[in-house]
Amino acid sequence: MALTLGALADEIGGTLQNGDPASEVSSVATLQHAEAGDISFLANRGYRKFLDSTRATVVILAPEHLPDCPVAAIVTDKPYVAYARAAAMLFPPPPDRKGAHPSAVIAEDCSVDASAWIGPHCIIENGATIEAGVQLAGGNYIGAGSVIGPGSRLAANVVICHGVVIGSRVTIAAGAVVGSDGFGLASENGEWVPVPQLGSVRVGDDVDIGANTTIDRGALEDTVLENGVRLDNQIQVAHNVHIGAHTAIAGCVGISGSARIGKHCMIGGGAGIVGHLEITDNVVVTGMTMVTRSITEPGVYSSGVPAQDNDSWNRNYARFRQLDKLARKVQKLERLLSAGKGGEPV
Amino acid sequence: MALTLGALADEIGGTLQNGDPASEVSSVATLQHAEAGDISFLANRGYRKFLDSTRATVVILAPEHLPDCPVAAIVTDKPYVAYARAAAMLFPPPPDRKGAHPSAVIAEDCSVDASAWIGPHCIIENGATIEAGVQLAGGNYIGAGSVIGPGSRLAANVVICHGVVIGSRVTIAAGAVVGSDGFGLASENGEWVPVPQLGSVRVGDDVDIGANTTIDRGALEDTVLENGVRLDNQIQVAHNVHIGAHTAIAGCVGISGSARIGKHCMIGGGAGIVGHLEITDNVVVTGMTMVTRSITEPGVYSSGVPAQDNDSWNRNYARFRQLDKLARKVQKLERLLSAGKGGEPV
Amino acid sequence: MALTLGALADEIGGTLQNGDPASEVSSVATLQHAEAGDISFLANRGYRKFLDSTRATVVILAPEHLPDCPVAAIVTDKPYVAYARAAAMLFPPPPDRKGAHPSAVIAEDCSVDASAWIGPHCIIENGATIEAGVQLAGGNYIGAGSVIGPGSRLAANVVICHGVVIGSRVTIAAGAVVGSDGFGLASENGEWVPVPQLGSVRVGDDVDIGANTTIDRGALEDTVLENGVRLDNQIQVAHNVHIGAHTAIAGCVGISGSARIGKHCMIGGGAGIVGHLEITDNVVVTGMTMVTRSITEPGVYSSGVPAQDNDSWNRNYARFRQLDKLARKVQKLERLLSAGKGGEPV
Repeated sequence: MALTLGALADEIGGTLQNGDPASEVSSVATLQHAEAGDISFLANRGYRKFLDSTRATVVILAPEHLPDCPVAAIVTDKPYVAYARAAAMLFPPPPDRKGAHPSAVIAEDCSVDASAWIGPHCIIENGATIEAGVQLAGGNYIGAGSVIGPGSRLAANVVICHGVVIGSRVTIAAGAVVGSDGFGLASENGEWVPVPQLGSVRVGDDVDIGANTTIDRGALEDTVLENGVRLDNQIQVAHNVHIGAHTAIAGCVGISGSARIGKHCMIGGGAGIVGHLEITDNVVVTGMTMVTRSITEPGVYSSGVPAQDNDSWNRNYARFRQLDKLARKVQKLERLLSAGKGGEPV
Repeated sequence: MALTLGALADEIGGTLQNGDPASEVSSVATLQHAEAGDISFLANRGYRKFLDSTRATVVILAPEHLPDCPVAAIVTDKPYVAYARAAAMLFPPPPDRKGAHPSAVIAEDCSVDASAWIGPHCIIENGATIEAGVQLAGGNYIGAGSVIGPGSRLAANVVICHGVVIGSRVTIAAGAVVGSDGFGLASENGEWVPVPQLGSVRVGDDVDIGANTTIDRGALEDTVLENGVRLDNQIQVAHNVHIGAHTAIAGCVGISGSARIGKHCMIGGGAGIVGHLEITDNVVVTGMTMVTRSITEPGVYSSGVPAQDNDSWNRNYARFRQLDKLARKVQKLERLLSAGKGGEPV
Repeated sequence: MALTLGALADEIGGTLQNGDPASEVSSVATLQHAEAGDISFLANRGYRKFLDSTRATVVILAPEHLPDCPVAAIVTDKPYVAYARAAAMLFPPPPDRKGAHPSAVIAEDCSVDASAWIGPHCIIENGATIEAGVQLAGGNYIGAGSVIGPGSRLAANVVICHGVVIGSRVTIAAGAVVGSDGFGLASENGEWVPVPQLGSVRVGDDVDIGANTTIDRGALEDTVLENGVRLDNQIQVAHNVHIGAHTAIAGCVGISGSARIGKHCMIGGGAGIVGHLEITDNVVVTGMTMVTRSITEPGVYSSGVPAQDNDSWNRNYARFRQLDKLARKVQKLERLLSAGKGGEPV
């Protein structure tokens, strides 16, 4: 597929500069590796150094970089969004398939839309509903009574347990599990009694769920992901968690039971969220941070500890183990000096 | 299904107060969302505030909360355990299936009990044993010579590698892997020589294994989970780990090779356990803690770092990087003051 | 299978001492559990205490332990490598299978070598290439156009997405996902626009990928694992990451997008690597460390925080929250003392 620069600028909402609107582009590449016929983009200052020598046919960039662009440019305030649109136009997803592969096992009382694709070795249990245009790649398990909303795409070997509701245009990457039992245990005489997990999971529209991510069903009420939530790979979402709209969560995050995360939050990779707390909207949690209390003010929160060379780390950590004692010593020194100076506070 | 309050109190071992033993309940709900016909419970102080206005037909609670309960109550010292029993009575698991789906691929020399269910697209390799009442949901792989004990339930796409022994009434959630090769490597001239992993995994009775959790086989001897161990989702158990009876481990924990964890321990989410160490019985490790040495005394152990606002964090962490220097300065100040005061220790 | 001690010493490159070259061994065991007929080994000082009483027929060990060995010994500078070779000889992997199980679904235009095995319920999409001797255990999904190199072994339920290239003799454990979409999002008016992920994943030769590990495809260029990389379970490798040859990474590590890790590195369990940075060759990162900046010097780097008893931890952490203030107090004390002493620096 090829696009003219004029059509491209129109479609992605930018202004073509220093270029022939009839020139054609057919692919995308980074600034440093682009060749003639490629679209490139500049969205991260770290890559500014590659602009001067780019061989792209056109570069999507912000107005301040236009003077330095050696080739045609499409100028926009949001170059990364504009690039995303351009790439999606040139590389649409493969065409949808329809029907069901003969190896799929579909219970008799399911509702499967004729425009959906049920791939090889899928299992659709009793009473499930597969809506228009759904694409199940293969090896998927859809539990009894679950609903997969229109246009959703499940990669291979995704498991949706019983009674789960997935919205429209949701993408779920390979190996993810939605609706597994929450980790509910009651203690009796030193042993654990499992607590039945009777809620489910409700996933809104335009949600992404990453590879091997797991989302547990609620104990009594539902675990909820609102519209536009984006989850990376290997995330664990425990029972009764509620994630607000348009919140993005990076890989390897663990969210404990009944935590409530606001809208438009960003949670960095490897962070941990303790259960039964609330994080307000527009909060950023940086990587490997542990959130142990509710956060009521928007802002950036951290506790991820940056690496040092091992010798420095060991010396500093040895002092940390005695930090309370060190602070007491400083208090004592303050008192001594204060006494020596007639008692004024130092 | 419905139960009378009288029958319910008898079954779960509590005392009915302020209620008609012939009243019926048929569902369960939280205090704040319960309606007529619902059982609710109060087991966590944080939810005490919802007791006054509950519309549940009956609340399971501890004696100290009885005076504040506006509706019928079932009084017990263990309200959460009693609730778990009530919920299990009202919502039993779906009835067992028997036989094998025609799409299952079962090697000829397997032993499959007639009361077990082998779901669609399962694969049972040579010499495996599937005991009475086992339920394999679908897409399961049971490796050569493995044994799945009576009453165990495997959700969709669980993989049991070869030679693994699973006990009775074990539940394994979707996507879990039991018996993958341990990470054993010998270094030679800067390259890695894989070390054959010749042990297996032995899982006791009444064990739960969470979604996408992985348990590696031993290098020479077996990786062992004793009876009643409860593992949440996304846990990694390395080769030759031994986990004692009735220990519960929350999500995203990593346990390195040959670590030995005692009985009745609780390990918080995201914790890491270094290899070749021993943790005694009745130890609690809080979330995101790293255990680097053996723990010989029961108690609570921590190193998870709670979040601060990012500015405070950066200022404090910058000081931490110089903590050893700071401690030396304080020592110098102590010496100076001590000298100034004739040498007595400050 | 049985080997004579003479043949064994020849094969693994060691010198037989105090033993009859015609004696036979047929199994392997730890020093403490070995019986007659077993090979054992001493590679970790922690197990030295079991040497005196071992009942192994022969022990593989380094020269300095020979005087203390009560049985026959094979002496070598690399006892663990030699043991790995011995174990691999006595316990070769099960014989390869050939052909395709009739339940496998193989697109018509694939290239499948006659010596490969396509297990039950596998799915091979259009244009995939399965080379000589490949073993697909069952339930595997091989996406359109992907290549699985000669001799590679995929355990059950591994998913390889489209366009991925896997080298020779690669082993991939159950549930791993290679080639899922990277987590690429552009922000527009508070919502997320997905950025098409148009690169792929290239995996070199002799690579191991652990159970439920996930490796995302690149955004524009490829995610790359060079030859001999060894990945444990539950690792997340984000888009455009590049991992150098013979680097070994332990379980539960998360590597953010476009990070570049050198050759011969070792990354400990639960570590996190921030994106868009570079780690040079021969770097060791210890467990649960967060790498936030490029590392340009070989060496050992740490920030994993060892556990303390909870009371000590809480006291020390409370001081840490005020560490910047404490450091300012110490500076003030220094100034006061310096002034009192005529202004010389203390």
